Amino acid sequence: VEQGPVGVGLLGCGTVGGALVSLLAAEAEVIAARTGVRLELVRVAVRDPAKTRPGVPAGLVAADAEAVVTDPAVKVVVELIGGLEPARSLVRKALEAGKPVVTANKELLAESGSELLEVAAEAGLDLLYEAAVAGAIPLIRPLRESLAGERIRRVMGIVNGTTNYILTRMSEDGVGYEEAVAEAQALGYAERDPTADVEGHDAAAKMAILASLAFGRDVVSRDVYREGIAGLAGADVAFARRLGYEVKLLGVAEQVTADVNEEEATAPIAVRVHPALVLRAHPLASVRGSFNAVFIEGDAIGELMLYGRGAGGPPTASAVLGDLVDAAHNLQRGGGGRSVTPGRARIRPMDELRSPYYISLDVVDRPGVLAAVAGVFGDHGVSIRSMEQLGLGDEARLVFITHEATERDVQATLSALRRLWAVERIGSLLRVAGDTTR
Amino acid sequence: VEQGPVGVGLLGCGTVGGALVSLLAAEAEVIAARTGVRLELVRVAVRDPAKTRPGVPAGLVAADAEAVVTDPAVKVVVELIGGLEPARSLVRKALEAGKPVVTANKELLAESGSELLEVAAEAGLDLLYEAAVAGAIPLIRPLRESLAGERIRRVMGIVNGTTNYILTRMSEDGVGYEEAVAEAQALGYAERDPTADVEGHDAAAKMAILASLAFGRDVVSRDVYREGIAGLAGADVAFARRLGYEVKLLGVAEQVTADVNEEEATAPIAVRVHPALVLRAHPLASVRGSFNAVFIEGDAIGELMLYGRGAGGPPTASAVLGDLVDAAHNLQRGGGGRSVTPGRARIRPMDELRSPYYISLDVVDRPGVLAAVAGVFGDHGVSIRSMEQLGLGDEARLVFITHEATERDVQATLSALRRLWAVERIGSLLRVAGDTTR
Repeated sequence: VEQGPVGVGLLGCGTVGGALVSLLAAEAEVIAARTGVRLELVRVAVRDPAKTRPGVPAGLVAADAEAVVTDPAVKVVVELIGGLEPARSLVRKALEAGKPVVTANKELLAESGSELLEVAAEAGLDLLYEAAVAGAIPLIRPLRESLAGERIRRVMGIVNGTTNYILTRMSEDGVGYEEAVAEAQALGYAERDPTADVEGHDAAAKMAILASLAFGRDVVSRDVYREGIAGLAGADVAFARRLGYEVKLLGVAEQVTADVNEEEATAPIAVRVHPALVLRAHPLASVRGSFNAVFIEGDAIGELMLYGRGAGGPPTASAVLGDLVDAAHNLQRGGGGRSVTPGRARIRPMDELRSPYYISLDVVDRPGVLAAVAGVFGDHGVSIRSMEQLGLGDEARLVFITHEATERDVQATLSALRRLWAVERIGSLLRVAGDTTR
Repeated sequence: VEQGPVGVGLLGCGTVGGALVSLLAAEAEVIAARTGVRLELVRVAVRDPAKTRPGVPAGLVAADAEAVVTDPAVKVVVELIGGLEPARSLVRKALEAGKPVVTANKELLAESGSELLEVAAEAGLDLLYEAAVAGAIPLIRPLRESLAGERIRRVMGIVNGTTNYILTRMSEDGVGYEEAVAEAQALGYAERDPTADVEGHDAAAKMAILASLAFGRDVVSRDVYREGIAGLAGADVAFARRLGYEVKLLGVAEQVTADVNEEEATAPIAVRVHPALVLRAHPLASVRGSFNAVFIEGDAIGELMLYGRGAGGPPTASAVLGDLVDAAHNLQRGGGGRSVTPGRARIRPMDELRSPYYISLDVVDRPGVLAAVAGVFGDHGVSIRSMEQLGLGDEARLVFITHEATERDVQATLSALRRLWAVERIGSLLRVAGDTTR
């Protein structure tokens, strides 16, 4: 069954690229024996070819990425440069040259995925990106293939390991936000500038990719409502825990069918990333440290969770290598270019979300305060499920969990509370996940 | 991109078949729009064609399964009959007629998988079986494709929902074994004759399939060391829980490389199914009720867990449908028949297992007993990590957890204990999972 070797051209040789070169060297024989596909690294484009890279033969290294893409010995291109340009142009050029592409580039997929997948489909070529979301967790292939016949209703994910590490430290060990961020940086989980992680940009790009796959419509990063965890108060994390919840930076994508007769394919899609309270009994609540997990709900499958390492060189390289075997197989045997171009998704505005909410307020400690605050909730049709009061010197902290309410009504309630004489400060507004209405 | 419809021939129309017919009717349009593959049910073979089946057009029903396989309108065959014959002959006949096959038949795969996959590979056709292990959990495709470049070290799974339901009731609610089985039967989780589940036959077939995929060598059911949960004492489940463990019917498949220089491809494989103590902090310990989960450890990916519904009509039908889309796509576009025939696995004998053990004994309550019992452990080189004693009237129960020891030494210890004056009865011998040496 075995055919000649498939030449691999690698663009970018950082953490993931370096791990891929090692993996390829170690596993090429076993892969060939098991799959009939023999992979051979033939060119590596890097920014600085003078730098020595252990395990990368110097003769393969080049500075010109475009030359690697167009090299006739390169049959499959692996894009690990990241960011939009020049990655986008290089991927396009590879596909136009008849070469399948494997990428781990979430920004690119979340921004230009639809365009590039269309180019790939027209050429009958693979554009594979398992490594772009949740590293080593098989997620893209299961969503695209195993669940091809499934009516998916909701995808909820912890898709950023950095923030999950920070939140785990805050929740389990009472560490403050700033200290937890510093720790994550020291461990190499967080960048020196942690903005992309803690503000939810990274998670938003990944949720756009997952939503597109789950619902068969194009969703891009800017469609995703986004709140990060920067400045999240340790007191709220601790209080949520006392109430039986873990606070997680959660990505949620759901298809909202208000009416059974509504055409499913065009029903609006809601996609958001924000810190959320997750009940301790929910499988996502026990995803600790830098692990990732994605929880999928569908009509036939019920509940499904995929859990593992979301980042790091070797796990991500393993996902890239799985795609590479697939792309090389399809190149030799046919069958590539499975993706069909989806239309743009209709996005449900955030203010139509229905969810229970967690709200913490600092109020003056005087008679009549609770009545006044509760009155504001009532005026906006937001019904309170539970309330607890904690003394804080002259002030008191009130923590509410509401029954299901709309984002619009809750935001209006908060605006009114901000103007109320009794309220010193609004603490946190956190959504309670897992039992929102569709 | 869309081509003409692909005719589907269904063999067997029980719980899963019926659910598949409904799913196909509901989802064929959406699948066609998203994947370019239009599936059309054209023939259904059933044992009793006279029986009315809601949703199955009477005109499609036939009693002759072979006629369905050879019908020129049937392009893909779905085998849901189960068991070895006539399923095996029908699958073979379909492949020989150039038709890809989708099956949910774990017995068939565990017994004749290698032979049938070879027939399929030679014909360049798909033989897909995602639904044969752990129902709706994408497991076969991730192992075969996403992890194609991964050096997998161990696969541990809760792959039988019936026994996991029984064990969850015993552990969480103190229900006795017999009562838990009766409950599982009443809920439809267990068959009237629960042997295949509670004796571990079902789990052993599934672990043979997973081991074959994970290690690229053919493993069959009879290679799997097997102990069931029949007669497991509630007292041991409760005691394990007190010590911080959950008792699970665990399938374990691992590749044992004693020596880094040993040729990996031929290193022995150990596959076993038995009740085991799982530390509460391990992700598998929180898999409750009838859910399934598979935990995979690999060199690059680290740890991965896939969790979901392992059985039931709609979840299993969803997995069949995913395979069906894949098979139809490959039939139209090429790329089927990925499997390469593996050689037979070398199986490590069970008595070479190294693991910590849980052992409970009823002993007479007299001075010198503990010294005598401990002496027997010591004589066989089995080192005790912890011991607890519970009074039981004139008797006492001793519960030991050992340091890592070999199965051979522990079995020899038990034989000697059985002959010891002080021992009234050997209670349970349970292996502690998750930290065995490879």
